[in-house]
Amino acid sequence: MSAASVALPPESSWPAAPRAQLVQPSAPPAKVLTSASMSQALRTMQYAVRGSVVQRAEEIERQLASGEGAALPFDKIVFCNIGNPQAVGQKPITFFRQVLALCDLPAESGVDHPSASLLFPPDAIARAREMRAAMGPGGTGAYSTTQGVSRFREDVASFISRRDGHACEGRNVFLANGASAAIRMVLTATVSSADDAVLVPIPQYPIYSGLLSLLGAHQAGYMLDEAQNWAVTVECLQAAYDDARAAGKCPRACVIINPGNPTGNVLSRDVLETVIAFCVAHRLVLMADEVYQENVHEPGLSFVSARKVAIEMGERARALELFSFHSTSKGLLGECGKRGGYMELHNIDPYVQSQIFKLASSGLCAAVPGQALTSLMVRPPVEGEPSHELYARETADIRQALAERARLLVDGLRAIPGFSCNDASGAMYAFPAVELPPKAVEHARAQGLAPDEVYAVSLLESTGICVVPASGFGQAAGRYGFRTTFLPSTDELRRAVRHIAQHHEAFCQRYA
Amino acid sequence: MSAASVALPPESSWPAAPRAQLVQPSAPPAKVLTSASMSQALRTMQYAVRGSVVQRAEEIERQLASGEGAALPFDKIVFCNIGNPQAVGQKPITFFRQVLALCDLPAESGVDHPSASLLFPPDAIARAREMRAAMGPGGTGAYSTTQGVSRFREDVASFISRRDGHACEGRNVFLANGASAAIRMVLTATVSSADDAVLVPIPQYPIYSGLLSLLGAHQAGYMLDEAQNWAVTVECLQAAYDDARAAGKCPRACVIINPGNPTGNVLSRDVLETVIAFCVAHRLVLMADEVYQENVHEPGLSFVSARKVAIEMGERARALELFSFHSTSKGLLGECGKRGGYMELHNIDPYVQSQIFKLASSGLCAAVPGQALTSLMVRPPVEGEPSHELYARETADIRQALAERARLLVDGLRAIPGFSCNDASGAMYAFPAVELPPKAVEHARAQGLAPDEVYAVSLLESTGICVVPASGFGQAAGRYGFRTTFLPSTDELRRAVRHIAQHHEAFCQRYA
Repeated sequence: MSAASVALPPESSWPAAPRAQLVQPSAPPAKVLTSASMSQALRTMQYAVRGSVVQRAEEIERQLASGEGAALPFDKIVFCNIGNPQAVGQKPITFFRQVLALCDLPAESGVDHPSASLLFPPDAIARAREMRAAMGPGGTGAYSTTQGVSRFREDVASFISRRDGHACEGRNVFLANGASAAIRMVLTATVSSADDAVLVPIPQYPIYSGLLSLLGAHQAGYMLDEAQNWAVTVECLQAAYDDARAAGKCPRACVIINPGNPTGNVLSRDVLETVIAFCVAHRLVLMADEVYQENVHEPGLSFVSARKVAIEMGERARALELFSFHSTSKGLLGECGKRGGYMELHNIDPYVQSQIFKLASSGLCAAVPGQALTSLMVRPPVEGEPSHELYARETADIRQALAERARLLVDGLRAIPGFSCNDASGAMYAFPAVELPPKAVEHARAQGLAPDEVYAVSLLESTGICVVPASGFGQAAGRYGFRTTFLPSTDELRRAVRHIAQHHEAFCQRYA
Repeated sequence: MSAASVALPPESSWPAAPRAQLVQPSAPPAKVLTSASMSQALRTMQYAVRGSVVQRAEEIERQLASGEGAALPFDKIVFCNIGNPQAVGQKPITFFRQVLALCDLPAESGVDHPSASLLFPPDAIARAREMRAAMGPGGTGAYSTTQGVSRFREDVASFISRRDGHACEGRNVFLANGASAAIRMVLTATVSSADDAVLVPIPQYPIYSGLLSLLGAHQAGYMLDEAQNWAVTVECLQAAYDDARAAGKCPRACVIINPGNPTGNVLSRDVLETVIAFCVAHRLVLMADEVYQENVHEPGLSFVSARKVAIEMGERARALELFSFHSTSKGLLGECGKRGGYMELHNIDPYVQSQIFKLASSGLCAAVPGQALTSLMVRPPVEGEPSHELYARETADIRQALAERARLLVDGLRAIPGFSCNDASGAMYAFPAVELPPKAVEHARAQGLAPDEVYAVSLLESTGICVVPASGFGQAAGRYGFRTTFLPSTDELRRAVRHIAQHHEAFCQRYA
């Protein structure tokens, strides 16, 4: 059965009770390491982006592959749960891959091979020679220094300097296995005890809530205002701060995600000034998650970094301590599998920086191919170089596709009765609110499940579309919904919107 | 000045007091995040393999590069602090790199390019096609599933099954960013509170001590018997266990490193049986760090996995819960920069396994090039394939070089008066004991420094040889020494031994 001919199954075939977790805690402690003896902090940690709905989707995918899933009303899973562009068809940037390949190949089999020019353009060969020299004799096969290859960090510093118009130094750049690893290091260094709190937007990308659980620290969620396109307001920051204080917690840091994940909003300079002034006034370190900085789709909007704003605020923000994060997984490369990324430390105490260095050392270094890709991301081919034209065409195509799909998805979701959805101005997601029938909510609550988890499993099992329940990101009480990427092809997205609409109607009828 | 003509500097030019740390704690807390407010667990963590001696070496290297180091009695740093083979001249395995390059190149620029066969042998092209199919449409550019690409995990499972003669399943294999990341995940899941203890060999590779500090757990060190070639004895295990109990701690797990790092010993089947029986009797999870399993240099010795021994012990070890670790960074590939590796879970509670899965999910996946390399490591070219001859020659050369250098280094160190050194039967290190003059010990203690740290800095600053003080790995009270790799070229190692001998004589005279 082709994906195009998907139909919803009869109501009676829907699952009565989606599982909250695939594996139940072990009963009697026959083993040494059990639910009772293991880390309880890990048990409480949640990470919905790859949570129970996704595990169910992978289970169904295995059934489809083995033929067991023949009775299902779809023939493939459409993974909209994660920003993983190349998994759903986005092509890699050719030049980057050519240079990476030439960095990996032994010289005599690559850059020095007499036939190299038949496979590789001259600027890819030249760049690879330069990067091989920068990596030293061990190349991609050796541990680099802890913070990453010095020249690659200088490339990042030049990029930041150009982007912000304010000089940045390579010694303050740490290359990491994706932004996730960098965020983990910073939170590990920042949080000292269970009394420490970190201000985190709600909704948020769950690496923050997850790591804070694991570290045993307090998450002080500040609400984004959905009615104002997910605005950050000083009132909400203050409320979260005050609540944490009232609970006897000490707020240490504040996280912003710009552009927003899962919310897709782009923070203006004014808002950033507000947040920065708030951090300075309340002595909070700012963590700026800027991994979607290249992903602004809305004409007229543009990304401004927290670093640029802080520097340009002058004396008012002189005291700000800032960690900012970027990644090779998003943007126009979407090279998630390479686990490349960096963080930049702005005005961080040198002793604290030395301790973060020590923590990074214990993991030896970030994967060197990811480091090389980070250098390439911030130093793409420029006009006049042989690969520039192809690079420009490839990135323009990706940029256009993302903008189109953001529009298509948001418009499509808005047209579904019971759905509302802010613009996906940035990032890779739509985050609609969905009105659920009261009976569905009751039914879920009775089983101890989040209503939108029941909804997401129902959507998956009847259409093959895998999204993440909004409850996995946090949201206002009584709101339900999900996060979906807009990364699949335009045709697939159109089909997905149709199936989401059909499923919603059937779901509402079921619980009428 | 060439490295060959290195001479020791006059005694007066030696540093009076090597620094314990390069950066001192920040004085008044002008900043928000300071030595006082940051994670105190991170502050107590130590990681000597990239500690103060190495940071001093990197500082000197920068001086040499900038010309400031012209007065130094050497013209390069010989990094013997870390098992980083390709950084000191070991060549990568050609076939592996060719396949990795073809996995990264877009199909039309690589496997499907009309000139591909001019650069790549047919079996590399065929293998790359197979691996690309296994990775799916996103290839190396997409996040894989949390545990790693299913087919690559099956490759690992087949390798383990062949190695042990007992079937292993891919669902119990987690691919990771090097063994370090896997070890971090297991300790994070295992340790629940400050009352939990983990038995760790002394000396040990400091990722264990470092992570236990960071997790706030108790390290129960069991002494290896240096007089018996670093033997593990049940008496020492029992003593460590009893001490932990007496201190009110609950031992949860036991670590073995086989072959030993930094000790170079290879555990016999008998010893493994003893350790396993001890773990079963005392309800300890076993963590077997087997990253050097391919690095056994001593004729007549061979590696046996803890898993194989446990299975073959039958009923006596039926209850054993075992995590074992392997890596692409060591062995005959030495691909440290790729951060590839895996862990295998044997008889682990399914709920605990699901929680480790969740923890791995929050980091999304291991870098996919490292995953691909792990598959290649366990599935090299076989006889009859076009690349087999080159592969066999390359690996035989590396194997022979490592065996020769291990012998050369150990014999050379043993010949130095005041040095004693067990065989480096396995792994990549010698771990000599060095008799220090009592005055040097007093002098160091007076400054709050480990005597062998003073010694290592002195060696570095007078010869350019960078080793790690033995105190960074733990050792018996009153013992001093260092860990050095035997990875540099034979010529360089001969020179290093001579310089170590000259330095030792001068050091002893200085403190006579």
